[in-house]
Amino acid sequence: MIVAAALPGIPEIHAGDDLAALLVAAAGTLAAGDVLVVAHKIVSKAEGRTLALADIEPGRRAVELAAEHGKDARLVEVILAESEQIVRSRPGVLICRTRHGFVCANAGVDASNAGSAGEVVLLPSDPDASARALRRRLHALTGVAPAIVVADSFGRAWRVGQCDVAIGIAGLAALDDWRGRRDAAGRALQATIVAVADEAAAAADLTRGKDSREPAVLLRGLERHVSEGDGPGAAALVRAREDDLFL
Amino acid sequence: MIVAAALPGIPEIHAGDDLAALLVAAAGTLAAGDVLVVAHKIVSKAEGRTLALADIEPGRRAVELAAEHGKDARLVEVILAESEQIVRSRPGVLICRTRHGFVCANAGVDASNAGSAGEVVLLPSDPDASARALRRRLHALTGVAPAIVVADSFGRAWRVGQCDVAIGIAGLAALDDWRGRRDAAGRALQATIVAVADEAAAAADLTRGKDSREPAVLLRGLERHVSEGDGPGAAALVRAREDDLFL
Repeated sequence: MIVAAALPGIPEIHAGDDLAALLVAAAGTLAAGDVLVVAHKIVSKAEGRTLALADIEPGRRAVELAAEHGKDARLVEVILAESEQIVRSRPGVLICRTRHGFVCANAGVDASNAGSAGEVVLLPSDPDASARALRRRLHALTGVAPAIVVADSFGRAWRVGQCDVAIGIAGLAALDDWRGRRDAAGRALQATIVAVADEAAAAADLTRGKDSREPAVLLRGLERHVSEGDGPGAAALVRAREDDLFL
Repeated sequence: MIVAAALPGIPEIHAGDDLAALLVAAAGTLAAGDVLVVAHKIVSKAEGRTLALADIEPGRRAVELAAEHGKDARLVEVILAESEQIVRSRPGVLICRTRHGFVCANAGVDASNAGSAGEVVLLPSDPDASARALRRRLHALTGVAPAIVVADSFGRAWRVGQCDVAIGIAGLAALDDWRGRRDAAGRALQATIVAVADEAAAAADLTRGKDSREPAVLLRGLERHVSEGDGPGAAALVRAREDDLFL
């Protein structure tokens, strides 16, 4: 059985905030087998991974792409800086491969808060390191080290809508590899590698309301996938370029 | 809060079995706001959507593709019959668009049970209709109509591992469209369409063990996404060919 509960009362986050302390205050008692799924946006904000568009000087390529796609050239400049490759584009849409290897719209640059301040939120520079640091700090504060998933909402090829996926992980299995194992009837399971951490991110997203300020969700019942070591992180979820048929 | 629990004691399913009755027996009391996520495999088996490879006569294209991909030509014949398009292929891998519009490996044809009997399990012909029929039968048996999701494990472009997604839905919102709505701080939410039913399928998959016979999971706490009407089903999750950048 899995129980997922959004944590109440997390305030607006600013650069330098002690996110772990805020999560502890919101969660109450934490156990070592717990999984905390945290929206990347508050991790990025706490880490100061934001930019004011007013400070950006777009280069020539950004100006050209922006004109082509009906976007703000300064925003496109930021997207290009975060991208290793523009995978596909068409008017209004830029599907990028980020420097981490994630493929998503706008390289994960979120301009929905831009408003008058023109502030955009980037993905963390190293979301696995962010997850590990958060886990260490939680351990320092509470004596227990729940697993951490840093999540973002990604669109998908072929399917409408977005699902949350894991972009940073500490202490939760990214994958559960059943190849070669057998099912209850003794039959070999074929090609079954469950993306556990992505499913955890999806379950957490299902739990929180987008309009209530609930950027963190506590998942219980995943003890079998939680480890004392931090593990390989969400890097294990990035398909290598040479194995990918859709880049 | 969401609570997900795998239903115990569901037996091996055969063509003609009353799946709804078995689900009711396993679930105990059901409520109208509940969501039952059912692995497509037991739906297909109950509907007789299986084939014995021994009965298949592969055509020329299947023989050629099979040689190229190191697969059984009879299996490839079945995959071709289920496919509208081979989206990508390389040795050992056939990514297909099914006649329903789903993009997945081998057009969803599951040969992991093939063994000595050589039986393969196809996707239901119309998984939304399967979900609706199951819901109707549950209602007839119990007087309540929980929502139904028929799920399968799909690989993803760019990411390692599989996540369960919804291929058939009755009574659960496929999508939750936040475009134009505002978040807790009054900011417009941008490009946010949550694939609710896919996240529900993922949460259910996380709950069940692949080695224990747990093909159905009961989700509670999603009442806000459950409707009396069956809704548009998983067809709403299929991105139209003309909108897709990866076909």
